[in-house]
Amino acid sequence: MRIPNHIGVIPDGNRRWAVDKGMTKEKGYVSGLDPGLVLFRLCKEVGIKELTYYGFTTDNTKRPAIQRSAFTKACTDAVEMLSKEDAELLVVGNSSSPMFPKELLPYTKRKTFGKGGIKVNFLVNYGWEWDLGDLMTNKSNNRATITKCLKSNDISRVDLIIRWGGRRRLSGFLPVQSIYSDFYVVDDYWPDFSQEHFFKALDWYNTQDITLGG
Amino acid sequence: MRIPNHIGVIPDGNRRWAVDKGMTKEKGYVSGLDPGLVLFRLCKEVGIKELTYYGFTTDNTKRPAIQRSAFTKACTDAVEMLSKEDAELLVVGNSSSPMFPKELLPYTKRKTFGKGGIKVNFLVNYGWEWDLGDLMTNKSNNRATITKCLKSNDISRVDLIIRWGGRRRLSGFLPVQSIYSDFYVVDDYWPDFSQEHFFKALDWYNTQDITLGG
Repeated sequence: MRIPNHIGVIPDGNRRWAVDKGMTKEKGYVSGLDPGLVLFRLCKEVGIKELTYYGFTTDNTKRPAIQRSAFTKACTDAVEMLSKEDAELLVVGNSSSPMFPKELLPYTKRKTFGKGGIKVNFLVNYGWEWDLGDLMTNKSNNRATITKCLKSNDISRVDLIIRWGGRRRLSGFLPVQSIYSDFYVVDDYWPDFSQEHFFKALDWYNTQDITLGG
Repeated sequence: MRIPNHIGVIPDGNRRWAVDKGMTKEKGYVSGLDPGLVLFRLCKEVGIKELTYYGFTTDNTKRPAIQRSAFTKACTDAVEMLSKEDAELLVVGNSSSPMFPKELLPYTKRKTFGKGGIKVNFLVNYGWEWDLGDLMTNKSNNRATITKCLKSNDISRVDLIIRWGGRRRLSGFLPVQSIYSDFYVVDDYWPDFSQEHFFKALDWYNTQDITLGG
């Protein structure tokens, strides 16, 4: 079976999940923590080399303050939770903005926790325009140069993106690394994550013909 | 019904269609011309304001010469065919490369044909790295500035991307304009285009909740 090197995860649907349960929207985020850990361990088991979670974006910070503080806390907790595992962690996002949680500043350079063995990237206060905004140092149509000039240059090309919550869009997720990604959508909300979602996505990816546009 | 302003079209599956019919791969492209015209007229009918066709990419030009000349001719014919309609046509791609068909040079500035009324963009010898390669004039995290620095800056944000041929990936299609696009995949090959594909895509788009990340 052909396993992707790098999986991108868009864990969407936390707010809709909460509303369905009769809770207020911001209550949904904390229920996304356990799925994140289960998914991480599954990725290690099957031999994924790199995993990127879409935490929150600069777009998202325009939401009501009670939601913003709930998703910020969930992201902070998620990173700290993963730092207790064997992983090479990196948080990528605009850390010079007040929206960036200061608890995560130590993670903005990649660091190995435990025995490492898998790169895990966490996008926190990430914005596509922030990412592309430094692409301005030298004129070049060269892929390697463009990739190097991204602020997210320590994140490699994404092979498979899995989005929970039914929406079929990238919503600003790593526009350059996603150029050739296969895109798999799970209709269930992220807090309803099950192993089956993951294995079905891998099965589907295995049937895709990877051409990189050639 | 909520109609997208701008539809992006990835007309994939021509080669697989030809092989299924017992023909050699390059024979598939010419059968993509009629669908392109039918789709254009449908878009005008329902009030789409802008339509972008994914012609061929710099990645595609690495294919065997017989295929390359077949898809280049199909794109040239398609643009000339659309120039007989009421449309504001623009061809976007690396026109300084020998892979760019010289017949299309007059179309690299937007021109109104007939009564105009709909913008039609055609990506020809387009490469994402070519598009992003001029993003280098001034350092800025500002969306408007980034968008202005794209070589494809005369193409606006895409609301709905429809891809024929079953693949769920963007394959380098306008990475910046696609950031918030809703992505609809038709399993049938492009030469098997039917009106129903288009109307189903519009129906689906109508049920989506457009947030632009907010």
